[in-house]
Amino acid sequence: MCELLGMECNVPTDIVFSFTGLRRRGGGTAHHADGWGLALYEGKRARTFLDPEPAAKSPLAAFVAANPIKTLLAIGHIRKKTRGPTSLANTHPFTRELWGRDWVFAHNGTVRGARSLALGRYVPIGTTDSEHAFCHLLEGLRASFPKGAPDAATLSEAVAELGGTIGKKGTFNFLLGDGQRLYARCATKLCHIIRRAPFGQARLADEDVTIDFAPVTTTRDRVAVVSTVPLTTNETWQIGEPNTMWVFDRGRLAQTHAS
Amino acid sequence: MCELLGMECNVPTDIVFSFTGLRRRGGGTAHHADGWGLALYEGKRARTFLDPEPAAKSPLAAFVAANPIKTLLAIGHIRKKTRGPTSLANTHPFTRELWGRDWVFAHNGTVRGARSLALGRYVPIGTTDSEHAFCHLLEGLRASFPKGAPDAATLSEAVAELGGTIGKKGTFNFLLGDGQRLYARCATKLCHIIRRAPFGQARLADEDVTIDFAPVTTTRDRVAVVSTVPLTTNETWQIGEPNTMWVFDRGRLAQTHAS
Repeated sequence: MCELLGMECNVPTDIVFSFTGLRRRGGGTAHHADGWGLALYEGKRARTFLDPEPAAKSPLAAFVAANPIKTLLAIGHIRKKTRGPTSLANTHPFTRELWGRDWVFAHNGTVRGARSLALGRYVPIGTTDSEHAFCHLLEGLRASFPKGAPDAATLSEAVAELGGTIGKKGTFNFLLGDGQRLYARCATKLCHIIRRAPFGQARLADEDVTIDFAPVTTTRDRVAVVSTVPLTTNETWQIGEPNTMWVFDRGRLAQTHAS
Repeated sequence: MCELLGMECNVPTDIVFSFTGLRRRGGGTAHHADGWGLALYEGKRARTFLDPEPAAKSPLAAFVAANPIKTLLAIGHIRKKTRGPTSLANTHPFTRELWGRDWVFAHNGTVRGARSLALGRYVPIGTTDSEHAFCHLLEGLRASFPKGAPDAATLSEAVAELGGTIGKKGTFNFLLGDGQRLYARCATKLCHIIRRAPFGQARLADEDVTIDFAPVTTTRDRVAVVSTVPLTTNETWQIGEPNTMWVFDRGRLAQTHAS
């Protein structure tokens, strides 16, 4: 199993605290030692740090942790491979452009017979079921709205529907971002927390690290964090219902779809 | 003006020496202080380091220089903006997937009226003439070969032809990679060198750095380096003829096209 990490906020926020927890689980406290990736949006484009090496030992992961980059939307992943060898081409998250913005995708689980999913404009570069499913999903969106992106509600409904259809073929927990919103589908295992005022302390489950958010936030800040498992031990995480999809927008849970 | 750096080899090679020279020119010895980027292929996928900050002062550039990643094909760029503000979305190189592989593009010069170039499946994320021209060029390739990539000679001829047509609208020096070959078009200013046995010393023009390649190479190694200006002072660089395009393949100059 892989682990997912997403963050979506209303003010630029660095993901170092959560990434520190996730990173330790990449070959450290857990067995997710087949590479990691982290995409950080700046407007419509995402910059993505990718490393086929275990996150716990990766110099690039150490750099990312030591040099916080603030963002409104981030998607991270650490991999325990189930399909496809360890290589850069098979390292999540995956990125494709649609409607003049980067779409970023990371998956936890296995989609059986993913190769039978029809492709169109987007062709997988690697050999994972995940990237194939992502290409199929994006092509589904493109084909459904050939004139461009529809309104937010229509779009998230379409993502949920496509996600649910693909999800029938296996375990399809995913995080998908478009630079504006974070779509987070729970097939089996996903949780989230929304941090907002009054901000307090949070203690990482996998590392002896505690952070006090109060001095670095304002009363208007809202930060949604989504993860495969709760990353902290002293906060209450919302556990996802199987076959639902959350949509986060400016640090709020904007919608919950059956999916 | 921006500056381009490309490397294409027959054995995995790190680009740190050349990148060190280029980096100093990014806000150091020259005035190219509007961001930088470096794409390093591993097979069909490229990982790209992007920073809208000056390369000479960028912690990420320092990380890349200190942690060499070997590659067969790299494309780098430092930017002095002419069109479009400084932002991640406007930072070269740009990447899009075609035929199941990443294509990476960096441009030096200005394409006048780039927005009049027809688009198809690839839509610019930022506001540069460069990314618009890249999207137009890739769509031209896709439309010319709807069934997939043609043979190498046909493909490079098509790239040269599309490059030449766009080049009529302004100054279109570019580097384009597909993970197999490096296409390097000279409109006004581009040079290259092919390092091979017997390897000797090279001395950077912009930094007091000399490297001896002999201990770190074998007699079969071939490394082609392409740059806007010669990066070393004690080697003979081949100066490009305006309106030609070089194609490098496994460290050899495979073809030279009128373009």
